[in-house]
Amino acid sequence: MSTKSAQNLSAVLHKVDDMRLEDWPMPRQPANNEVLLRTKCVGICGSDVHYWKHGSIGNFILDKPIILGHETCAEVVAVGPDVHDFKVGDRVCTEPAVPCRLCSTCKEGNYNLCTNISCHATPPHSGTLTKYFIHPADYTFKLPDHISDEEGAMIEPLTVAMYACKRAQVTVGKLVLVTGAGPIGLFNIMVAKALGADKILVTDINEKRLKLAQSVGADHTVLITKDSEETKLVKEIKETLGQMPDITIECSGAPSSSRLSLLATKHGGIVILVGHGPSNVSLPIADAAIREVNILGSFRYKNCFPLSISLVSSGKVDLKPLISHRFSFEQTLDAFNTAYKGEGVKIIINVENNKPKSGV
Amino acid sequence: MSTKSAQNLSAVLHKVDDMRLEDWPMPRQPANNEVLLRTKCVGICGSDVHYWKHGSIGNFILDKPIILGHETCAEVVAVGPDVHDFKVGDRVCTEPAVPCRLCSTCKEGNYNLCTNISCHATPPHSGTLTKYFIHPADYTFKLPDHISDEEGAMIEPLTVAMYACKRAQVTVGKLVLVTGAGPIGLFNIMVAKALGADKILVTDINEKRLKLAQSVGADHTVLITKDSEETKLVKEIKETLGQMPDITIECSGAPSSSRLSLLATKHGGIVILVGHGPSNVSLPIADAAIREVNILGSFRYKNCFPLSISLVSSGKVDLKPLISHRFSFEQTLDAFNTAYKGEGVKIIINVENNKPKSGV
Amino acid sequence: MSTKSAQNLSAVLHKVDDMRLEDWPMPRQPANNEVLLRTKCVGICGSDVHYWKHGSIGNFILDKPIILGHETCAEVVAVGPDVHDFKVGDRVCTEPAVPCRLCSTCKEGNYNLCTNISCHATPPHSGTLTKYFIHPADYTFKLPDHISDEEGAMIEPLTVAMYACKRAQVTVGKLVLVTGAGPIGLFNIMVAKALGADKILVTDINEKRLKLAQSVGADHTVLITKDSEETKLVKEIKETLGQMPDITIECSGAPSSSRLSLLATKHGGIVILVGHGPSNVSLPIADAAIREVNILGSFRYKNCFPLSISLVSSGKVDLKPLISHRFSFEQTLDAFNTAYKGEGVKIIINVENNKPKSGV
Amino acid sequence: MSTKSAQNLSAVLHKVDDMRLEDWPMPRQPANNEVLLRTKCVGICGSDVHYWKHGSIGNFILDKPIILGHETCAEVVAVGPDVHDFKVGDRVCTEPAVPCRLCSTCKEGNYNLCTNISCHATPPHSGTLTKYFIHPADYTFKLPDHISDEEGAMIEPLTVAMYACKRAQVTVGKLVLVTGAGPIGLFNIMVAKALGADKILVTDINEKRLKLAQSVGADHTVLITKDSEETKLVKEIKETLGQMPDITIECSGAPSSSRLSLLATKHGGIVILVGHGPSNVSLPIADAAIREVNILGSFRYKNCFPLSISLVSSGKVDLKPLISHRFSFEQTLDAFNTAYKGEGVKIIINVENNKPKSGV
Repeated sequence: MSTKSAQNLSAVLHKVDDMRLEDWPMPRQPANNEVLLRTKCVGICGSDVHYWKHGSIGNFILDKPIILGHETCAEVVAVGPDVHDFKVGDRVCTEPAVPCRLCSTCKEGNYNLCTNISCHATPPHSGTLTKYFIHPADYTFKLPDHISDEEGAMIEPLTVAMYACKRAQVTVGKLVLVTGAGPIGLFNIMVAKALGADKILVTDINEKRLKLAQSVGADHTVLITKDSEETKLVKEIKETLGQMPDITIECSGAPSSSRLSLLATKHGGIVILVGHGPSNVSLPIADAAIREVNILGSFRYKNCFPLSISLVSSGKVDLKPLISHRFSFEQTLDAFNTAYKGEGVKIIINVENNKPKSGV
Repeated sequence: MSTKSAQNLSAVLHKVDDMRLEDWPMPRQPANNEVLLRTKCVGICGSDVHYWKHGSIGNFILDKPIILGHETCAEVVAVGPDVHDFKVGDRVCTEPAVPCRLCSTCKEGNYNLCTNISCHATPPHSGTLTKYFIHPADYTFKLPDHISDEEGAMIEPLTVAMYACKRAQVTVGKLVLVTGAGPIGLFNIMVAKALGADKILVTDINEKRLKLAQSVGADHTVLITKDSEETKLVKEIKETLGQMPDITIECSGAPSSSRLSLLATKHGGIVILVGHGPSNVSLPIADAAIREVNILGSFRYKNCFPLSISLVSSGKVDLKPLISHRFSFEQTLDAFNTAYKGEGVKIIINVENNKPKSGV
Repeated sequence: MSTKSAQNLSAVLHKVDDMRLEDWPMPRQPANNEVLLRTKCVGICGSDVHYWKHGSIGNFILDKPIILGHETCAEVVAVGPDVHDFKVGDRVCTEPAVPCRLCSTCKEGNYNLCTNISCHATPPHSGTLTKYFIHPADYTFKLPDHISDEEGAMIEPLTVAMYACKRAQVTVGKLVLVTGAGPIGLFNIMVAKALGADKILVTDINEKRLKLAQSVGADHTVLITKDSEETKLVKEIKETLGQMPDITIECSGAPSSSRLSLLATKHGGIVILVGHGPSNVSLPIADAAIREVNILGSFRYKNCFPLSISLVSSGKVDLKPLISHRFSFEQTLDAFNTAYKGEGVKIIINVENNKPKSGV
Repeated sequence: MSTKSAQNLSAVLHKVDDMRLEDWPMPRQPANNEVLLRTKCVGICGSDVHYWKHGSIGNFILDKPIILGHETCAEVVAVGPDVHDFKVGDRVCTEPAVPCRLCSTCKEGNYNLCTNISCHATPPHSGTLTKYFIHPADYTFKLPDHISDEEGAMIEPLTVAMYACKRAQVTVGKLVLVTGAGPIGLFNIMVAKALGADKILVTDINEKRLKLAQSVGADHTVLITKDSEETKLVKEIKETLGQMPDITIECSGAPSSSRLSLLATKHGGIVILVGHGPSNVSLPIADAAIREVNILGSFRYKNCFPLSISLVSSGKVDLKPLISHRFSFEQTLDAFNTAYKGEGVKIIINVENNKPKSGV
């Protein structure tokens, strides 16, 4: 079958290293609190690439074909009978993880931790690299006209950072250390800046990334090399910022960065772990405990999409510089290969338009 | 010189394994916001024994003789010119760590983290195994008549637990795991119970301690053996409590318990590290981070002495069963040897009365 | 029609002063997340009586017949297809207000403030003075065997107090002022005591109520008379407690009590308004603002039913002394008349058993 | 005596309407934790004018001559023996209220509520309209070079707003209502903007002030007239912002504004009372309580001076447009008369330079 005749062309991951553009059943009509959406564009996330190459993340194991993609800009094509907040033609982004709404975790407002949640592109649930999909209206958010489709697709990863920065209580006057200047690190720098952080120091092992970090708001950078000694790094960070950082946002998942987070953060400060690394990490936990460095996890987000949209809409965050590559829907495999090679920052697939575009 | 003729007989640690009962200069008269106290009795803490046997804890190194002891009941013998809240004869306990009052940490109310704090029996500062000492009036707390001297000396370790339980938000309805049933574990069980914890499950490697834990309020106990498997323990704890604990209070400092704390605690729950173990511990940090288990340290206490006194005064906590041994001041070395052997729970030295008493 | 032949006998309020025991349509079978319940007993709340006598509360206006009653103990008679936490025969209590689950207020965990909430016995929604009704399973809570049906029916008003005390941060060591010793005041005294309040002082204009307050845990009482002067009351409260209360729980709705709450509470303390009085009250707001007395409202409850059940189940709260009158379902009007006259404390209607019982 | 020969020329308020520029004893040398400061410039606050014209505010009554002024920029001329953070020549601003440091309120970090606090220009304590004064080093804050003297003198009123906005949890995405566009309202608008407020709506009875409000960051303004109806204003505010404001900062002290604050704020939102009006105000408290609108007071500030300096230093707040008048020290009475007439916004007295300057 040609992809051209497909009614609902989709990027379906069948098994490891086997993703195919093929037709997928058209969704039914939207029920109450549902909207039927037509995908405009989708960003590629590290987890998409990981499922493609490894077939699983933790307990989430691909055991039947699913559609990948969860960083989404779409357009409303139909609304459920009771949906009044959306109309056909509205441009939206989608919060991809929808909880059960019934458990005590949901009712207490911590729905991101619901153990009965279903999330785009997390097995066995399909994502949005597809022409049409249905989504709950209350997990769908309208985009202002002046936010582009591509920016709309980046609201999701921006919200990962928004949630982390809010949990870490980043605000005016705070000194912030960000370890890791990959995409998640960059989004966190931007949000921390927008929330008023006084100074942001960023560490990475890659000088190019550190330059990018500076261009999106980092005040200081420290290049980490094989020979970097922990205690010297702690000292360098303290001297550069004038005191130990109030908050560290760990975005690399690297054990050495997790260690540095605990050691470098001020007594009574907060370390938030956004990057997730190996199962077991040797940590200087007694030092952190005695200095009451609070170590918090951060899983996805909750109640933060409107804040992210507000940040972009008001111009406090400019997402456009993060787009490094653009691909048409038919070039999806090329897009994934580019992401796999670690090239670029945000890679956007234009699902709406099948014609190839050249990179930035 | 005979200890009998000493004006201010004191237990002075000269160097490792060299503690002597000897005379020490009498304190000057109390200045503003000071009281002159006569020690009644003092409990022995693990840190006292550690300085005696090792001469240092972390960066605190014995480099000149100091007096040990910081769990103190005393009597007011003189007050500073501006002190109106105390009068001669008042029975009191003392909060041993006095901060600088000037730094931003102090002014924000986190005085326990003040880096310019001086604490009884922490080099180079002397403690209270001495007949007379001076203390700031605002770190001195009156004891009601019906709290005995020995209970008064246990307010300090009780406050370690009070602070930990408050930081961990122990309250009505919470399921609490306490890892480690040594003295600090036992105090935490008692406080957690008094704060309304629904069920408390305690783990230890020592069956005798677990029995003691039950006698002071533990609802369930789990004996940990060499063969205990982590995942089975997590499952057993969950099944015993009906769900994963909301809060884990780690009181052992053992790496295996730190690991268990992170794995066994509910998503979104709190682990508080009260026991401090080795410098580096291999921890399942990704699992904790993804489940947003918040890992908090707990250092000493702040603003909690009145709460502890209230708990004992109202009968919500009965400290007396924790006293395992009593010694006279002249038997101080015997008391330390008993503590060093790991016998007993709380060992109290009657500083006031030089005559020996028999153990419980 | 005789009430005896009724399939679903119900206490239906047709209009002001016109409540009738009559048949009401049997509920349909429970759908997903629903249980079909058979009412066992129901407590009468002031709001039930108010709708009966006035037909409205605020914007909630009776414009078609509804069933009254929302303090409920019931038994499960059928469960929805996906309901696994309940089985036929389970004894339960019900949280009467069910929110929309979709708005941002719900998703943030503040579902009690959802503007699209439906609540038992709040027009146009019917309550539980009926033989059978359907309820969402996740707003239904199992009762342990040793909690009686009557106690089960009192979990709801207890939860009003539980939520207020939690919002007001009542905990160990706090000095608490409760203004008003009616049913809501009494429940708050009991919960504040169970949460560890150090001392509770209660004010009322009725000496009999103050005695009842003492019997359920009040440490001190102050009788308020027509001649009571505000400043003298503030002074008396301060002197009785030894200092100004940390927390005031206003349970009377009387303007003079609202004023007293603001004036008597410690600087930086909390006033929580549980009793709601007239639309406009002259308040000493500048004094409260300058002393940073935080004034909080309290509307129904959220996420608190399990805590209330835990308090009763563990014996920390004994609800039985609050039951002043018992009526059979056929005596419903007598029960309402008794409540209207202001006699008694908690009045319980045995819906299950039509035979009259004598009062306590 | 001529003011020219005065060693320590000061603006001394002797009694109501009797302020004189006269010599005042030179301060002693600074002790530990003290600095000796030479005043550069001082802003006039409403409270200064009020003491001048009425001799008292609340319980603070002028019963001996004091120096007015507490919005201060100064230069260090000598430091106490243990002061290492400052050196002669440093430009600083001063936090004018210094607490006892000993009470539980201080130790809990709420030093602004210390009942034993002494504050510049609050009887019986003198202020800073004087050539030289001594101040505690830890309540003195260094100014970066690029903050001018005049801006330095405005750090104090800016901090009133900083504290209020922090207490009210103003952050990214929040809709904020500010009632009153006088100086305190304007500072709050600037801070709320800097903290990321999504939209700020300001009300006032004075169209000129509303224009100024817009120029410093207000997104919307509503002019209040004698005929404004409460319910219409609530509706207009809601419609203008798209929903009810999350936070209201009451800066006018006018009873009608206090009422509007309670009625217009979103359920679960925060009203913070920064302006303080008459002793008793008729408030729609039941509506606020049922909707859980939290009503918080705000008294001075705590731990916020560094944040304010950071805001100005980073350019997030530009204070210069708020300066409406400048006077030399010798023109102090003119300055007070200008303030008394309600002309201008911030009026700055150049204490350092006796030569008159012309207004802006």
